[in-house]
Amino acid sequence: MLNLALFGAGRIGQIHAKNISLHPNCCLAYVIDMNDVVAQQTAEKYGAQAVSVDQALADPRVDAVLICSITETHADLIELAAKAGKAIFCEKPVDLSIERVDACLAVVKKANVPLMMAFNRRFDPNFAHLKSVLDSGEMGAVEMLTISSRDPEAPPASYIKSSGGMFRDMSIHDFDVARWLLGEEPVSVYATASAMTSLHVREAGDVDTAIITLTCKSGKMAVITNSRRASYGYDQRVEVHASYGMLTVNNIPESTLSIATSNGMASQKPMAFFLERYAEAYRNELDAFVTGLQSGVENYPIGEDGRKALLIANAALKSLETGNVQTLALD
Amino acid sequence: MLNLALFGAGRIGQIHAKNISLHPNCCLAYVIDMNDVVAQQTAEKYGAQAVSVDQALADPRVDAVLICSITETHADLIELAAKAGKAIFCEKPVDLSIERVDACLAVVKKANVPLMMAFNRRFDPNFAHLKSVLDSGEMGAVEMLTISSRDPEAPPASYIKSSGGMFRDMSIHDFDVARWLLGEEPVSVYATASAMTSLHVREAGDVDTAIITLTCKSGKMAVITNSRRASYGYDQRVEVHASYGMLTVNNIPESTLSIATSNGMASQKPMAFFLERYAEAYRNELDAFVTGLQSGVENYPIGEDGRKALLIANAALKSLETGNVQTLALD
Amino acid sequence: MLNLALFGAGRIGQIHAKNISLHPNCCLAYVIDMNDVVAQQTAEKYGAQAVSVDQALADPRVDAVLICSITETHADLIELAAKAGKAIFCEKPVDLSIERVDACLAVVKKANVPLMMAFNRRFDPNFAHLKSVLDSGEMGAVEMLTISSRDPEAPPASYIKSSGGMFRDMSIHDFDVARWLLGEEPVSVYATASAMTSLHVREAGDVDTAIITLTCKSGKMAVITNSRRASYGYDQRVEVHASYGMLTVNNIPESTLSIATSNGMASQKPMAFFLERYAEAYRNELDAFVTGLQSGVENYPIGEDGRKALLIANAALKSLETGNVQTLALD
Amino acid sequence: MLNLALFGAGRIGQIHAKNISLHPNCCLAYVIDMNDVVAQQTAEKYGAQAVSVDQALADPRVDAVLICSITETHADLIELAAKAGKAIFCEKPVDLSIERVDACLAVVKKANVPLMMAFNRRFDPNFAHLKSVLDSGEMGAVEMLTISSRDPEAPPASYIKSSGGMFRDMSIHDFDVARWLLGEEPVSVYATASAMTSLHVREAGDVDTAIITLTCKSGKMAVITNSRRASYGYDQRVEVHASYGMLTVNNIPESTLSIATSNGMASQKPMAFFLERYAEAYRNELDAFVTGLQSGVENYPIGEDGRKALLIANAALKSLETGNVQTLALD
Repeated sequence: MLNLALFGAGRIGQIHAKNISLHPNCCLAYVIDMNDVVAQQTAEKYGAQAVSVDQALADPRVDAVLICSITETHADLIELAAKAGKAIFCEKPVDLSIERVDACLAVVKKANVPLMMAFNRRFDPNFAHLKSVLDSGEMGAVEMLTISSRDPEAPPASYIKSSGGMFRDMSIHDFDVARWLLGEEPVSVYATASAMTSLHVREAGDVDTAIITLTCKSGKMAVITNSRRASYGYDQRVEVHASYGMLTVNNIPESTLSIATSNGMASQKPMAFFLERYAEAYRNELDAFVTGLQSGVENYPIGEDGRKALLIANAALKSLETGNVQTLALD
Repeated sequence: MLNLALFGAGRIGQIHAKNISLHPNCCLAYVIDMNDVVAQQTAEKYGAQAVSVDQALADPRVDAVLICSITETHADLIELAAKAGKAIFCEKPVDLSIERVDACLAVVKKANVPLMMAFNRRFDPNFAHLKSVLDSGEMGAVEMLTISSRDPEAPPASYIKSSGGMFRDMSIHDFDVARWLLGEEPVSVYATASAMTSLHVREAGDVDTAIITLTCKSGKMAVITNSRRASYGYDQRVEVHASYGMLTVNNIPESTLSIATSNGMASQKPMAFFLERYAEAYRNELDAFVTGLQSGVENYPIGEDGRKALLIANAALKSLETGNVQTLALD
Repeated sequence: MLNLALFGAGRIGQIHAKNISLHPNCCLAYVIDMNDVVAQQTAEKYGAQAVSVDQALADPRVDAVLICSITETHADLIELAAKAGKAIFCEKPVDLSIERVDACLAVVKKANVPLMMAFNRRFDPNFAHLKSVLDSGEMGAVEMLTISSRDPEAPPASYIKSSGGMFRDMSIHDFDVARWLLGEEPVSVYATASAMTSLHVREAGDVDTAIITLTCKSGKMAVITNSRRASYGYDQRVEVHASYGMLTVNNIPESTLSIATSNGMASQKPMAFFLERYAEAYRNELDAFVTGLQSGVENYPIGEDGRKALLIANAALKSLETGNVQTLALD
Repeated sequence: MLNLALFGAGRIGQIHAKNISLHPNCCLAYVIDMNDVVAQQTAEKYGAQAVSVDQALADPRVDAVLICSITETHADLIELAAKAGKAIFCEKPVDLSIERVDACLAVVKKANVPLMMAFNRRFDPNFAHLKSVLDSGEMGAVEMLTISSRDPEAPPASYIKSSGGMFRDMSIHDFDVARWLLGEEPVSVYATASAMTSLHVREAGDVDTAIITLTCKSGKMAVITNSRRASYGYDQRVEVHASYGMLTVNNIPESTLSIATSNGMASQKPMAFFLERYAEAYRNELDAFVTGLQSGVENYPIGEDGRKALLIANAALKSLETGNVQTLALD
């Protein structure tokens, strides 16, 4: 039974707290949140204690920490936890600055503690199913990957401004999926993008619509289409073309009801809320972390994966700014 | 090259006339229709002559006739054509009276001429595909069959009154499909039905909504659901449960366009018009007739198939009238 | 916070125990099971106590009981709980004998306690969605209902023998769904059935494949197709034809992965295990019970619903035995 | 009734000859082909005469010509026909050299004759349906377009070598579709491509797999994914993201049969042969040409559309060669 400390009890922190309570091999020991009331309520709900960061890290019974606080705090908390010898589960990103990421990962390396980056999409049962078929080799080699990733609507202006831009905030999930499914690092990236759907995004100097192309040395390629606004729900699809055919993961409708009338056939929209859409992925990623700690086998994305996804995001941003293709050296 | 005479140049006759003109191994020699103008125009359009029934049957160059006239004339024309030694292609039914059918088929038998009953659904490429998979044996034995068959809207009162009722007019196609796919004659039939969707059908003493169950001696069974009115189009589906799984033939949408909005996912209705829905079936059934005459192999439904479908329809009607299951002796 | 006692900690009892632990407004006080070890382990897992039936019913703090034990014990436990003034949640059926059911429901009535019959399908989000659209009236009146209900494979011979036969064991869920969606009691039932897929079912004198037709006085009708064995998974579909169109609830695939190769397009089978397929329904039905007790509004199937579904099952069995249609008087 | 002359009676020429024979408002007067036997047979089949180019163009009764000969002959034949005052229907491209295209279109302009470029995809009923919904304005403005276009297998080496490369031979159709649906000219193009699926393509110095991105001044964008080999058939899909949602045109399966077994759900592949897939498009494009000549309204792609699609193809090729984005000035 692993003892976990939760740093940040906001929306995603609550999801993890609940999943910890349902997991047979771990329990929630401490909750840490800037908001004392939230920390206290969450701790009570799950039989944990509300404490400070220092208290949690000082307790030798704590095996691991989950970092679910705001982005600005991630790198500092990772370093503190690493120095305290705790295993770390961290929501993306490590940091928006690649220099800060590098420094932080050096600390983790020195401390020799596990660091899992919570790229949740890898743990969605449907994407994982696709990956397992690819890994089986039965479809041959990957040739092309197309990722469709659209949010139902843009986050508020305040969020946009501190998000690091769409590529580092939203597309970064797709960069991770691309790396995961391509099985080879991209060597160049080209991005075209515009602000067409959300006025406050445009005013914030960010983009809301993009096409990003990644090319690998072997000739494999990937294209990511992004939008901050999809009226029909949360659009999360993947299509892989391989030697022997095409693998597709489609959206999950809100219900299986369909209605046929004189106006046509109507079926349900995709689930619109990411916490609902990826509910099972959140359970699975926690399990991957816990199981990984117990078995010593890191079968999950690590700090380096977070760093490489950020490097792609940065290059995509530079491609957009310069209008030219950018080379990447991720190997 | 077979020379054909077309009896009846109405809606379905026009379809056959056109298909004859496109077929490489037959041509239209004569057109016969009560309406002289229609006969003349159709003949001109396809390079044929407008003549009388007697003239057409007297010409030794005529190999075969297509009977597309009104139901009341079918049996008489079949007998005349049979006595003239012509091969016969006839729209269903031979007649609404089973006694008249028996007498007519006796004439055909005596004349020893081919008689194809144009049950078009067997020639639809999708249903034919399903049948070919069943015949291959790879799915094992048929256990249960469900046929969904609904018209977009009820025909006018005048048609309803002379139609012989829904079972003999519309369900008869489904009885033929059931016999074809079950590969075994049903030994009992049960029908429940009501007039719920079309006032003029109710006023005509007919039904517009029905569930009909057929049971075979081996335990195989089929259920047919019918309606004279489907707001969403012409509903023509089949589902077969066999030893190793389920085979389904679904409707064909009017186009492959689908639209996703905040209201959900909208796709297109099934094709609504039977002449369009079964356009390929009409071409294929003509080809089956022509090819059958040339090869001597009757790979199509014959008079006896029409007779048995009518016997089922009659028993279904009696089941509805009595409220009880009716036995059948078709073997 | 309602205190619940769980009678029977087998497969379905475990599901309910877990769902109770996750529900914010109820908690598990007692676990009762013939197997002491199972009772003890389940009680420990959820912070409850393992006790006897009498102990649980004698505790005034117990608000309600969940009866998840074997069928033979249901009626006795219902009566004991009713006499103890407890609200009751019972897995179907009350009993296989209609006389015993009548006697038991009389006791419940006299005790004036709530009795919810756990017909889980009504609480599936997809079927519930369909029902809510029907209830809104926007589709007009129901005309015909088709229910497809197939198990992945037949239960073992031991189960079959004490099951009361397919109609009372399996189809009874479909009879409940039919009554729920028709909104009108059927006045006649016709069943055809055979044992074609499972030798041990045939040897037990039961059937494994059936078509059952229900007819209402207004002319509304329903057809249920059943099989004890569907190689492709757990088949649970509903199709409703109403004035303005067709409503369909389809199966839920195991994943949204599909694969296109030179052999065709392959997608995933429906979920095969009923506990997984109806996981959300089990959560929702517990919530309906708890919410109903707290609000005093019985928005769930009650004892009378169980009784009527059993009457339909009995009539279907008689139809099968006699080969004739059976009338029903459920109003 | 328009009199048409057919230049080239190969595979696509035969399609047009048949469609002319079925069209009520035109007829085939002359067939011209390098192969005398083919010319003669085709002429006989459709009641036309086999003649020389000069003879056909010299006949004042000829209203229009269809150019279906090999690419190298297109520009010369267009010029001859234009000088003879004939309306022209031409298979793509005018020529592989933009200089030759410019010269040719100048001749057409001077002669003031209609020139339709047979970009067949615009006339597919499904793509046309999508376009008509876009044109209605009900979906708002186009934001992003994704075109999936894959051939079942690469053409032979001999064809590849004279094809002008994948972009000018195959992607050119997608460039036309993109221009048609975007409703705005792209101002830049980026292409990444490789030869991964077909050895003989690689040996010919061509590519077989590509992602091509087009960007418009307004911020609208399009991405085209291409492959010379799709094991699952001819892949022809379009997805349009607009203000109020997503419009999708999917592939058409070979039949609507699907089979569910213990291995999963299997449905049919897309149609694999372009002449079959676009059969209706070929009929519609001929009708657009004939109707356009009769009405004087050019509702079809013209020479300038062919020129612009070629300019995009050339820029895509340059992007691939240089590794950089290329600007376009099509307005």
